[in-house]
Amino acid sequence: MEISARNKIKGIIRDIKPGVVMAKVTIEIPGGTLLSSVITRDSVDDLQLKPGDEVYAIIKSTEVMIGK
Amino acid sequence: MEISARNKIKGIIRDIKPGVVMAKVTIEIPGGTLLSSVITRDSVDDLQLKPGDEVYAIIKSTEVMIGK
Amino acid sequence: MEISARNKIKGIIRDIKPGVVMAKVTIEIPGGTLLSSVITRDSVDDLQLKPGDEVYAIIKSTEVMIGK
Amino acid sequence: MEISARNKIKGIIRDIKPGVVMAKVTIEIPGGTLLSSVITRDSVDDLQLKPGDEVYAIIKSTEVMIGK
Amino acid sequence: MEISARNKIKGIIRDIKPGVVMAKVTIEIPGGTLLSSVITRDSVDDLQLKPGDEVYAIIKSTEVMIGK
Amino acid sequence: MEISARNKIKGIIRDIKPGVVMAKVTIEIPGGTLLSSVITRDSVDDLQLKPGDEVYAIIKSTEVMIGK
Repeated sequence: MEISARNKIKGIIRDIKPGVVMAKVTIEIPGGTLLSSVITRDSVDDLQLKPGDEVYAIIKSTEVMIGK
Repeated sequence: MEISARNKIKGIIRDIKPGVVMAKVTIEIPGGTLLSSVITRDSVDDLQLKPGDEVYAIIKSTEVMIGK
Repeated sequence: MEISARNKIKGIIRDIKPGVVMAKVTIEIPGGTLLSSVITRDSVDDLQLKPGDEVYAIIKSTEVMIGK
Repeated sequence: MEISARNKIKGIIRDIKPGVVMAKVTIEIPGGTLLSSVITRDSVDDLQLKPGDEVYAIIKSTEVMIGK
Repeated sequence: MEISARNKIKGIIRDIKPGVVMAKVTIEIPGGTLLSSVITRDSVDDLQLKPGDEVYAIIKSTEVMIGK
Repeated sequence: MEISARNKIKGIIRDIKPGVVMAKVTIEIPGGTLLSSVITRDSVDDLQLKPGDEVYAIIKSTEVMIGK
């Protein structure tokens, strides 16, 4: 399935910190930047996410702000 | 001013396509990935954005989904 | 690819109204409800969306508000 | 009060899982689909949400992505 | 209908700039601050919004970032 | 750094309620309205937010809905 969200950045999961409802997933992308992703804990379980996994960070265009 | 949005990726503006209310800004980040950002046309004008500018793509953690 | 966004509703595209940067896509879901989706015009083109297409409306949990 | 968010889907609350700050609410909509909604725990308390309640899932158009 | 979005700020519409799909609405709130709201043009039409209208700016808690 | 998000409302932090992953920050803005902001706990720590701090509530235009 293709999705309309236009930004897909390949990366590797470096850390997962589970909360009660949400979980924070840290993803290393090319250039060494660490992205912080907060998704539901249910999604972490369903996708069986764990450190070392190759994943995509997916971001809608309207959610990318610009700083200058 | 520091902002709570946790993800800031340095990049260079490669293209700006203005609409009536919104505008699409294409940003090249390390690794050669092109990010698509849709912001208001007012912001493009106020920040005087133009191709070649060094900017930051700024994204809240809750807006980073994960695909696997 | 599986995505962390938890809500996927099957539907059929009934209308597409293109703007300059964004486009409005109307999707009929089970029960006859019409969903309104605003995505980039680029995505409409890339996914080659057209009326009659079977698609999924995909929504993150944090974007579903509740009214009572 | 009428709200600009264009998508309102009637449903019934089937489950509420409270966290510290956020809470996950599961809503059954026509066709039997279960929607996952993550709102603040404060809102669950203020709206006195509980399983069995008839509610509306409310979603802005710009938050409805499309998968094909 | 009560809605889970926790922030509701009373204000007066000072300007509406319609695009093809989206529209920008400028709202003056107490203290004289001008808020910029981008909603669908369909919503502007359906709510019959016009300058001078008393409205509420409604914002989900997860969309309020903090700068310091 | 200037940011594309168009709405910046000055206020004072009145309360912080930390969860495991997220935290709720209550901000008083001119006119006495209390805004509710949910950001990551990491951001609360990094920005060293505490009650009494003068901060800005920052909101993207596309996240400001209108109720009438």
